[in-house]
Amino acid sequence: MGRLFLIPSPLGDNNPAEVLPASVLSLLPELKTFVVEEVRTARRFLSAAGLKGHIDELEFHELNEHTTAAGTEALLPLLERSDVGLISEAGLPAVADPGAALVALCHRKGIEVIPMVGPSSLMMALMASGLNGQSFAFRGYLPAKTDERRQALKTVEKQSSQLNQSEIFIETPYRNDSLFADMLSGLAPGTRLCIAADITLPTQLIRTRTIAEWRKVNGFTIGKRPCVFIILA
Amino acid sequence: MGRLFLIPSPLGDNNPAEVLPASVLSLLPELKTFVVEEVRTARRFLSAAGLKGHIDELEFHELNEHTTAAGTEALLPLLERSDVGLISEAGLPAVADPGAALVALCHRKGIEVIPMVGPSSLMMALMASGLNGQSFAFRGYLPAKTDERRQALKTVEKQSSQLNQSEIFIETPYRNDSLFADMLSGLAPGTRLCIAADITLPTQLIRTRTIAEWRKVNGFTIGKRPCVFIILA
Repeated sequence: MGRLFLIPSPLGDNNPAEVLPASVLSLLPELKTFVVEEVRTARRFLSAAGLKGHIDELEFHELNEHTTAAGTEALLPLLERSDVGLISEAGLPAVADPGAALVALCHRKGIEVIPMVGPSSLMMALMASGLNGQSFAFRGYLPAKTDERRQALKTVEKQSSQLNQSEIFIETPYRNDSLFADMLSGLAPGTRLCIAADITLPTQLIRTRTIAEWRKVNGFTIGKRPCVFIILA
Repeated sequence: MGRLFLIPSPLGDNNPAEVLPASVLSLLPELKTFVVEEVRTARRFLSAAGLKGHIDELEFHELNEHTTAAGTEALLPLLERSDVGLISEAGLPAVADPGAALVALCHRKGIEVIPMVGPSSLMMALMASGLNGQSFAFRGYLPAKTDERRQALKTVEKQSSQLNQSEIFIETPYRNDSLFADMLSGLAPGTRLCIAADITLPTQLIRTRTIAEWRKVNGFTIGKRPCVFIILA
């Protein structure tokens, strides 16, 4: 019986050798079968990680938002045959992506799941935010529609205040600045907001300020880059 | 002005070169000043990371649960002078430890904070659990007293069910098995529980089962080892 290795990948156009430890880099050449969110991205990652020579001998299977439950189940025979590496588009697999369904199946079938060390944009944002890391919640995306989003921000701010809990969000990059604008207009002046963009990249920007302070910053835009938002009310 | 580097350390008796990427290993010899949770552990880590030669030339300052707000503030002049590395007892600093207070101060003073890649026991447990990674919360420790703890488990289970949210806990190792017993007796049969112990170590154990399934496992004990608990009701 094979094992399922959860293999982190860089958060952007980084050299894998810089952001992944030896335990991951030395594991990669041992694996022949990969379940990936997108084959093209995974090939590029593995090639950058030094697997150039035998990348055409590897077997890739996709698991993404289009995969049905039956499609996920159909991946299990791969694990009966050999070890499999699971790779997401960026960062840790099986946290906010469909890989979690395969992991859940492995637990049901008694297949060992082994998480590997790598960059987590959520935790790197949280640790660098200075906000409460003893109590935090992640809920993925806020609603996309403006009215619903403003309401959701209010709800989340109230909850953050009641539980003294850091609230972590992500947003589709092209909506970063409209979410930021809604936060500036809708949150209380004393609420703290951390903006963490381009984590691990040369253009990394991580700043925590109160909403009142952010309002005073002229001409600041996040732009279309991967960004984690954290608020603490 | 210096920068504050947040430096992860191994989760147990691992070789740092195995679990930390080159970006961290190459940074360490550049730093002369460290703020650490405990000097003895930090020295041992840095020595294992290859800094044997000049470890006596390094400057260590402690920041832990005994440090006052004034004591934390007194660390700021170090950063005016040079870059500083922040190291916790294990894993990511400034998440569930007093380092966050120093990070918060840095944001107030405009000092750059740079998170480095390393092992996060919470995220490694979550990714390997197969539970919901799109929505999760961490609240640290449950109450230590049995009655309060049982009540807290009920509350958390209800919340998990209402929000479809994975609930992550940690426990002092010597209480692992009494917490586990309370979970088996107090949670609903269909609630899923992931036990993730000794993450990244050779003795690593990560299993997700329903409470009904866990009840059927004979003679299982966690023992006094670092463990992350995750439930999804």
